[in-house]
Amino acid sequence: MMIDLNSDLGESYGRYILGNDEKLIPLITSANAACGFHAGDPAILRRTARMIKEAGIGAGAHPGFHDLQGFGRRNMVLSRDELYSCVLYQLGALDAFLRAEGVRMVHVKPHGAMYNMAAKDRTMADTICEAVYDYCPDLIVLAQESGELYRAAKTRGLRAAAEVYADRAYQEDGTLVPRSLPGSMIDDPQEALHRVIRMIKEGKVTAITGKDIPVKADSVCVHGDGEHALAFVRAIRQACAQEGITLAPLAEFIQ
Amino acid sequence: MMIDLNSDLGESYGRYILGNDEKLIPLITSANAACGFHAGDPAILRRTARMIKEAGIGAGAHPGFHDLQGFGRRNMVLSRDELYSCVLYQLGALDAFLRAEGVRMVHVKPHGAMYNMAAKDRTMADTICEAVYDYCPDLIVLAQESGELYRAAKTRGLRAAAEVYADRAYQEDGTLVPRSLPGSMIDDPQEALHRVIRMIKEGKVTAITGKDIPVKADSVCVHGDGEHALAFVRAIRQACAQEGITLAPLAEFIQ
Amino acid sequence: MMIDLNSDLGESYGRYILGNDEKLIPLITSANAACGFHAGDPAILRRTARMIKEAGIGAGAHPGFHDLQGFGRRNMVLSRDELYSCVLYQLGALDAFLRAEGVRMVHVKPHGAMYNMAAKDRTMADTICEAVYDYCPDLIVLAQESGELYRAAKTRGLRAAAEVYADRAYQEDGTLVPRSLPGSMIDDPQEALHRVIRMIKEGKVTAITGKDIPVKADSVCVHGDGEHALAFVRAIRQACAQEGITLAPLAEFIQ
Amino acid sequence: MMIDLNSDLGESYGRYILGNDEKLIPLITSANAACGFHAGDPAILRRTARMIKEAGIGAGAHPGFHDLQGFGRRNMVLSRDELYSCVLYQLGALDAFLRAEGVRMVHVKPHGAMYNMAAKDRTMADTICEAVYDYCPDLIVLAQESGELYRAAKTRGLRAAAEVYADRAYQEDGTLVPRSLPGSMIDDPQEALHRVIRMIKEGKVTAITGKDIPVKADSVCVHGDGEHALAFVRAIRQACAQEGITLAPLAEFIQ
Repeated sequence: MMIDLNSDLGESYGRYILGNDEKLIPLITSANAACGFHAGDPAILRRTARMIKEAGIGAGAHPGFHDLQGFGRRNMVLSRDELYSCVLYQLGALDAFLRAEGVRMVHVKPHGAMYNMAAKDRTMADTICEAVYDYCPDLIVLAQESGELYRAAKTRGLRAAAEVYADRAYQEDGTLVPRSLPGSMIDDPQEALHRVIRMIKEGKVTAITGKDIPVKADSVCVHGDGEHALAFVRAIRQACAQEGITLAPLAEFIQ
Repeated sequence: MMIDLNSDLGESYGRYILGNDEKLIPLITSANAACGFHAGDPAILRRTARMIKEAGIGAGAHPGFHDLQGFGRRNMVLSRDELYSCVLYQLGALDAFLRAEGVRMVHVKPHGAMYNMAAKDRTMADTICEAVYDYCPDLIVLAQESGELYRAAKTRGLRAAAEVYADRAYQEDGTLVPRSLPGSMIDDPQEALHRVIRMIKEGKVTAITGKDIPVKADSVCVHGDGEHALAFVRAIRQACAQEGITLAPLAEFIQ
Repeated sequence: MMIDLNSDLGESYGRYILGNDEKLIPLITSANAACGFHAGDPAILRRTARMIKEAGIGAGAHPGFHDLQGFGRRNMVLSRDELYSCVLYQLGALDAFLRAEGVRMVHVKPHGAMYNMAAKDRTMADTICEAVYDYCPDLIVLAQESGELYRAAKTRGLRAAAEVYADRAYQEDGTLVPRSLPGSMIDDPQEALHRVIRMIKEGKVTAITGKDIPVKADSVCVHGDGEHALAFVRAIRQACAQEGITLAPLAEFIQ
Repeated sequence: MMIDLNSDLGESYGRYILGNDEKLIPLITSANAACGFHAGDPAILRRTARMIKEAGIGAGAHPGFHDLQGFGRRNMVLSRDELYSCVLYQLGALDAFLRAEGVRMVHVKPHGAMYNMAAKDRTMADTICEAVYDYCPDLIVLAQESGELYRAAKTRGLRAAAEVYADRAYQEDGTLVPRSLPGSMIDDPQEALHRVIRMIKEGKVTAITGKDIPVKADSVCVHGDGEHALAFVRAIRQACAQEGITLAPLAEFIQ
């Protein structure tokens, strides 16, 4: 039984420092590196590629909308050509730094609004997967199994890895309860731990309605902002160890 | 006897159209494609990569400073880390589109202020060549033989191709007469043609002082803005044909 | 009977030239000047402010989304705080150039996607009008009378001017037929002229369904791209002269 | 005897938080607010304008180069037209938020590379002062008395306020010892306090060579990053109180 722990990295920009990359990186097995559009300037990409190499973890691209001001979190309506090119551009840009470090790019996880919109919009999902496939058909798309992006990847002939969230409530259709609604966050760390282990071992989670729903878990999305978040990642690692769940980067087990 | 004709392409941005790419591309043998920092948005890079593929000409990257407002023509002082990363980022971004089209990147020619500054600043030249080499040691650096960038490429173990200008006056040290000075432009098309053929066949050009100086010519830099410029490129092609000079992309003869 | 002719101006950026400002400006009575977000760099704003001063026409701000790549034509979802600040920032930026030239800012017309979204979204419309009001309660909002932006301006205590389109088909509710639908453009210049004169004199236009609908016309939106467009503006001016309709900037007749 | 304490504020951008504005603002008498080019997005400008209003301190603009990636600290070569427009644009943008809050803009202090370059380059200094004057001739330019910007302001007919640094070593010509050289920083807080009080009371400071030089002190530049910096600002305030030096915003005493 294997699980990947993924987190966003390299989201600083110029003098602006964001995240806790140095402390987080020893705790995860896959990094989603910002590619310069929603975050990350070229020098940050270089530093992030080096850190990924040194840590020996899985390298992934984290492309977002060209919206630094909104950190890629504002919905934008792009044409298919624009979206395809936006993704392909960022894959190549990040990969240049990975290749210069001798690191292979393994996966792609869109960021923020692009991720959320693609989960619901099949055309967007198809366009993103077309760009990923054209760049390299061996890449793995990291997304929730319940969303269009996961399905589009499979249809396109790409491998897909299913992502779960330890700290978020689910709706019955497998999508997350929007942050704006009450109960969207699982605030109790023990409950969150219990849920994530159950998702991994049983493939089930209790939706906000109380009903158990199936959920596929290849990778747990974790965060590194603050000591609290880091402690929770350590707790997940410990719980996995106790439960006989092996932590491994996506490349080792996604087929 | 072989010569390459290179030109900058893909310098549009969003709704802003620049240049005459469709008309110019059948006349040249190498394209320097803008990479998104001084010009060229992702959708433009995609279109440019396709045009290069269809035309079968040599593909090159044309990285510039991150200064769309100044079109990469304003001097900027970057740290070595920033300059290295700025170049590497753009090489990867452009290459993603070339690779998606099955086209091999052949050369790199920095743009505008980056090109001019690197011709005089060996540290900048070395930094640019380090990024080019780290990306792919098979790439050819396109630069004037009289400048530091050409020398830095050779020192770094990269191939270098020597660029000449048909419409510009030279100083005795092989550098161009600055545009701000009188006599910097060769306005007479016949004289320009005569000069370019002599540079190719004899490896000589008459400097503005009247003295003949040696000049290495692997590639002639041409422009496509306006019918006048296109007519001049056609005249160069015709003159080369008459003189037994073969037009060929850099990859065919630079060693 | 008075009518204003408004057009977007100052939409160049750096080396990128757009539009036909010099030829268009003598033909119009109000300019909507780009403010730097969707188009227009600071030096362009300066030049545009000077041209407006020399021509003595009405000066207006044309704020758009912070999306140069998409020319402000891509829908973006901003928070109220972001939208308010986005508009206020651009009003001040443009006004600095107008004030340096001794020109008073008269009106505001949002650009592209911001204009279209605000016509349908009352919250956006209210937010834009709040920023306009806070900047200067004497400003006139230029918008279609059928849309939310016009209504929001009135509610907020601002003056509003009603804009019509000579070359676009209308739906029965007074909104434009989307460009993606057949029949959205009035291609025959004679018909377009006839329609615009009728909108001004009778306050009526025939919707695409064939039914006559009321339409308020304080200003006709015209374009300057190409000789065809310029000729059409000249034809509108001539037709107005023949019909006894006086061309005048908004400040002279909007109450 | 009066002194102003100035600090840069509002240098966050989107999700990127920089500085310690809330804690710093009660300790200073003048704020230099970032205007959106090197730092500060529109929503940040709005928030900063509000904080300035609530604190009742002097409001100043802090325009920088259009270089968010380099935080306005990288030298850039702009034409006079570009520099003038770059400054004027930012003054207007910030002022829109101040005016919406009913706050009067009092001073202008260029940021980073623009400040440093203008201290040495009289043409740049004149251009900046021309923009400031054209925007509002009542504005005060805040700069070191030893630099060209201070002199250019006086020549242009603007008021100038002389800025000193408590934590930096001076050369005999009144300029700062570059950070790259040893001894450039005054690390001992007691010594820094002693120096700043002497600059205010005696108009003298000991240069790095050991020689006493004259120095004009209207305002002390302070920083808010970290508890150490905040403690130092508090110490300056206390020392001023003990020495009978009144803290006051520039508008109260600069003539």
